[in-house]
Parts: sequence; C-alpha cells; structure tokens
Amino acid sequence: MSAVDTERRTSDKDLGSPKIAPYLVDCDLHHLWHQIDDIFPYLPRQYVQEIKDFGPMFPGGMWTNMPNNHGYRIDQDVDHETNFPSFTVTEHMDRYDFDVGILTGGDIYLITATTNLDYAAAICRAYNDWTLDHWVAEDDRFRMVLAVGPNDPIQAVEEIDRLGGHPAVVGVNLPAGGRHPYGNRMYHPIYEAAERHGLAMVTHFGGEGVGANNAPTAAGYPTYYLEMRMARPQIAQAHVASLICEGVFEKYKDLKWVFVEVDTWWIPGLLDHFDADWKALRDYTPWVKQLPSEYFRKHIRVGTQPLEQPAKREDLHRFFDQANAREVLVYASDFPHWDWDEPVATAATFPESIRDEIFGSNARQAFKL
Amino acid sequence: MSAVDTERRTSDKDLGSPKIAPYLVDCDLHHLWHQIDDIFPYLPRQYVQEIKDFGPMFPGGMWTNMPNNHGYRIDQDVDHETNFPSFTVTEHMDRYDFDVGILTGGDIYLITATTNLDYAAAICRAYNDWTLDHWVAEDDRFRMVLAVGPNDPIQAVEEIDRLGGHPAVVGVNLPAGGRHPYGNRMYHPIYEAAERHGLAMVTHFGGEGVGANNAPTAAGYPTYYLEMRMARPQIAQAHVASLICEGVFEKYKDLKWVFVEVDTWWIPGLLDHFDADWKALRDYTPWVKQLPSEYFRKHIRVGTQPLEQPAKREDLHRFFDQANAREVLVYASDFPHWDWDEPVATAATFPESIRDEIFGSNARQAFKL
Repeated sequence: MSAVDTERRTSDKDLGSPKIAPYLVDCDLHHLWHQIDDIFPYLPRQYVQEIKDFGPMFPGGMWTNMPNNHGYRIDQDVDHETNFPSFTVTEHMDRYDFDVGILTGGDIYLITATTNLDYAAAICRAYNDWTLDHWVAEDDRFRMVLAVGPNDPIQAVEEIDRLGGHPAVVGVNLPAGGRHPYGNRMYHPIYEAAERHGLAMVTHFGGEGVGANNAPTAAGYPTYYLEMRMARPQIAQAHVASLICEGVFEKYKDLKWVFVEVDTWWIPGLLDHFDADWKALRDYTPWVKQLPSEYFRKHIRVGTQPLEQPAKREDLHRFFDQANAREVLVYASDFPHWDWDEPVATAATFPESIRDEIFGSNARQAFKL
Repeated sequence: MSAVDTERRTSDKDLGSPKIAPYLVDCDLHHLWHQIDDIFPYLPRQYVQEIKDFGPMFPGGMWTNMPNNHGYRIDQDVDHETNFPSFTVTEHMDRYDFDVGILTGGDIYLITATTNLDYAAAICRAYNDWTLDHWVAEDDRFRMVLAVGPNDPIQAVEEIDRLGGHPAVVGVNLPAGGRHPYGNRMYHPIYEAAERHGLAMVTHFGGEGVGANNAPTAAGYPTYYLEMRMARPQIAQAHVASLICEGVFEKYKDLKWVFVEVDTWWIPGLLDHFDADWKALRDYTPWVKQLPSEYFRKHIRVGTQPLEQPAKREDLHRFFDQANAREVLVYASDFPHWDWDEPVATAATFPESIRDEIFGSNARQAFKL
C-alpha cells in the first residue's frame, strides 16, 4: 500500500468514520479492461488477429445503462487504462478499510452468450490471467471469481482446475443470462469442480437476452433498460427454483451459491410459496428432502445491492426478518456503478445486531476467506 | 335453478354460512370442453377434418399438473361431458351464493402459442360461441372473458368487435405465455378494442414455454411442474413492467388489467424498486408520467389465488397493507383445480374491513359488473 493510501485511511479514521464491521468484505467490485487489447498478451495469436479484423465479437446487448459515463458514477471519470485498479484501492478499499474486495468482472459476462465456445473459453482464460496480473497483484485484499463459459462445461472445469488453487480465486461466476436454468444437469461438472476446490458459485446479473441466450424475461424481449432492471429478480427466482428442484445442494453438500445484483425483495415470498408447493408436489422430486427454504438458508447467499426501499423504514427491518437476512445477505457495493450502495449508508439501514454477519462473516463463510 | 339447488342453498344458509360479501364475485372459474368435438358445430368444416385426421394440433406443454384427476380436485370426478356447467352451478355458485362467476377458460390458452394464426383464431371463435351456448346459457350469473390470439391482433380485434357487446362478455384474455411482453405496441389495437367495448384485459397463467412461445423463465426451460409454479410470478412481473414502461395506461386511460393465478407476493417489492428506478431513469420513457405504483393502483388488479402463506399470520396482514390489497386484489377461486382457494377459508384470512372490496367491489369496477 502506498504512503498516500495509508494517509487517507488514517485521515478517514480521524474524521470519525469507524469501520463498519470487524472484518469487512465487499462481494461485488467491478473490474474491466480499458479495451480488449489489454488481454492480447494472454490470448492465442489466431484470436488476436480475428479481433483485429472483426472486432471483439461480443454479443451485443440491446439495452443501455444510465447515460453519461457508461453507467459509472459520474464523479468517477477514471482513466481505466492507467489507474482503475489503484483508483479502486484508494477510493474504495482504503476509504472504508475493507479487508477483502471480490472482483466480479463486468462486460466479460457477454462473451458467455456467444456460439463459439472455444473463443469464449479463450477470452475467459485470458481475462482471468489478466485479472491476476493487473488487479490482484495491485492489492493483496483483492479476491476474484473465475470467468468461465457455462455452455462448455468441459472447458469450464479445465479452467477451474487450472486456477482454482490460486489463493486469490474464491469463486466461479456463471452469469445470470444463460441457456438453461442452472439446476440443469449439464452444468453439474462445474459444481463438482467448484466444490472440489472450495470455491463458491456466483451468479451476477448479466448476459440476459444477448447472443444465443434466452430472452431476458419469460414474457420475451422487453424494450427499456428500466424493464431490464425489473427482470433481474425474475431470472434469479428461476435459477433458485431450478437449483433446489434438481437437487444440486443434495449432490454438492458443501456448495455455496452467491447471487449478486438481483434484488432481495423476492426472497420471502418465493420461499413461502415454494415451501408450500413442495409439500404438495414433492413426489416429483424425491431427492429434494428438505424444505426449499432450508436449502436456501444453508447454501444460497444474496448480495445486498440494490437494497430494498420500502416506504416505511419499519417494513425494511421486518423484511430483514422475513428474508432471514442475518444468514442470507452479503454486502455487495456494485462499485463503481452509478447505482452502487455506499457502505456507510447501507450499514446504517441494517440493525446493528446483524451488521457483522452481513458485512463480513457471511461472505467469509461463503467464500472461505 | 333446480329445486335441488335451491334446497342446497337454503340448507347451507341454515348451517350458518353467511354470505362472504354483499356482492360476491369469483374472477377465475375454469370451464373446459369434454373433448374438442364439442366445438365442431362452431368450427369451419376444413378444420374439423384436419382435427379428425391429425388431432387437435394444440402445442403440448412439457409439464404435468397434480397427478390424479388431471389437476382437478380429487373429490370432483365430474363427468365433464354431461354436467360440468351444472356441477359448477350447484357446487360453487349456489353453495357460496356468488353473484357473478367469471369463466376464464383453461386448455384454450395453449392454442394461442401455435404458428397457424388462422387456426388459432378459428378455435378461439368456436370456443367463445360454445361458451355462450353451453355455459353462459346455463346460469345468468356466469360471465366470460373472450379467448383471442395475441399474435394476430387484427383477428383478435375482429373477435372483440363480434362479441364484445354481448352482456355476458366482460373481458379479453391474453394468456401469460406469449412472444412479447404485453406492453409491446403490436398488441395495442387489442387494448383499444377492449377499452372501446368497456372490457377488462385478463392475463391468466398459461401457455408459457409451449409452441412458438418463449421459454417459461428468463433462465430457460425448467424441468419440473414445481418450477413452473414458481415461474408464474416472474412472467407477471415482466408483463407489468412492460405495460407500464410502454405507456399503455397513458394511452388507454380506462383500461383495467386483471392478472390471475400469478401469486401476489411480488407486488410490494416490485413496485418499491420500480418506483425508485423510474425516478432515476424516467428520461427514457417520458410518457410514463406517474410513479409505476400509481398506474398499478389505478389499472392493475391481481387475483387472490394462490394466496400468500407466510409463517406468521401477522405478516399476512402487513402484506395486505404493503400490497394495497384493498384496492388491488380480487377474489379468484381457480375452481375446480386441486389447489383452488375455498371462498370461506380465503375470506377468513382477510381483515373484515377490506373483504367487501376484495370479494366484490374491486371486481365489479374492473369488469363493470
């Protein structure tokens, strides 16, 4: 850590900004390349030439983000090429005295929606190597989730075996957008590999409705970015139902699954109905031996961002009870997007009695930190 | 009404079963043909011959329902051919003294997922005529929603113009499964016609993932019926976001939209986040002039079935507040399916202070009864 960074941390503490939790973890820090050329040193020459001729060949999303600054905080017009990692260190890790920040990627999610699975696997490998060299090497508090392509489980497993033992690698990301609900058995080898390496599965919103993926809602393709934001919890609900019904957590008893940036308001309602219906229909899925809410409690964690905003504050605290927030939620900032959740303000919305779990110990357990 | 029916009603009243609401409406009564031959008298000869040769050509769903009795209440092994309408009258309309029961169809939803839009339109026309002759004629308390094919708005409008003036026709059903979210402007002529005839739009769960429709979740095709049940609120969330973002309720200011059998637990969470995000992103949709929750409150109604089952009863009453149940919910039984909500038991879960609205006046307003 540089002398300047240390100064800032000291200074913040002097200003009376006590640390939010004794061990403070951010489960959603976005890291991006400046341009795809950044990963050329890690990519086979053939693909480098293809990219030079045809562009990055990423399936394009049809929806925008917040205008101005590409969806990033407008006060953060950072030069990604030269100082994005160090900017994240000083403006985020140091400022709030995080113990761990988990790098979750960003645009990389889109490549998993392409039809060329070899190209997708090569991009993921290069991106993972570049992340280790250019981000993880920058600060020993950074951890990362591996980018892998869900549609080629064989190569996904190879990548998990290649890098899963690295001490900075704590998870494997399958973007929420995909071709099948993630309980589907074609994906199980990925979960077997993740469990074997002690890695959490992570599903971050992304890739819905692009390339060869499904439409981003069950009703088809929406028009506006606002609708896409409302679609995030829908896809999380579908994956959760699938993971539990297919018995993934009976098969991989140590597996943790962290959903990020998919809202949290759906947790109690989905589980209440899921439990009730399972009681009526469990003959269909005899391997599902416990209440769906039990699997959820033991295996699934959900990022706090975007946090609920009910009209009455008391409803928020009641929601935390109903959602079993103490066990289930993990703090995620979504830094540095425009709609990130600032850590101190977010902490203030939680009862002090569950803050240590949500801002630290739940993530430590899920990611074995 | 037969003498036997009258006897039963009298007898029930004697047993101390007071009427649930002064004007009692059921927004979801299923009516089915015994076999497709029932509608042959209403169908062009060419299609009758095709059906005789190739079967009904309904896109088949890949998921089951509750085993035994095809998803119907196991105590109701009714002979659909001879007495399904009269059975519904005696066992349901009379027993609880309903003032109105709205016939919403059933398997007919599947035909709207076919690629042959002329055949779908012909089946819908025949089904509507058969419903009038064989159900509506059976009891003057029956009302019906028109079956139309959403993928051919021109023929849908023709059907609405053909039968929309019939006093028993109170709505137009677009099944939840479709090709596009229902805010999409290709459907607007249907809404214009519905509004012109004073009909409510109805969206009942059905048709997801069959034929040429979208996958039934944003994550793709699930495996089990239990997952399909969890998918219902997802598709409702997508349609609601679309209808509001596309400005349908600014364009059709008198239009009411009734969602049926899609759960209700998602209402407060979706609207809280929808309102917050609209404030940030309303530049994209300047025609959306009010909070999403305001459009919802004024235009959208949701059937009660399946009703929430939170662990604590007090959470249920709080949910009714958060969801603005007094204005938004309408009683729907789903009779005679296995998971129907019995009227007296359902009424007991609601505070008496909002029972008249939910069991009667909200539906009267929405359907202009």
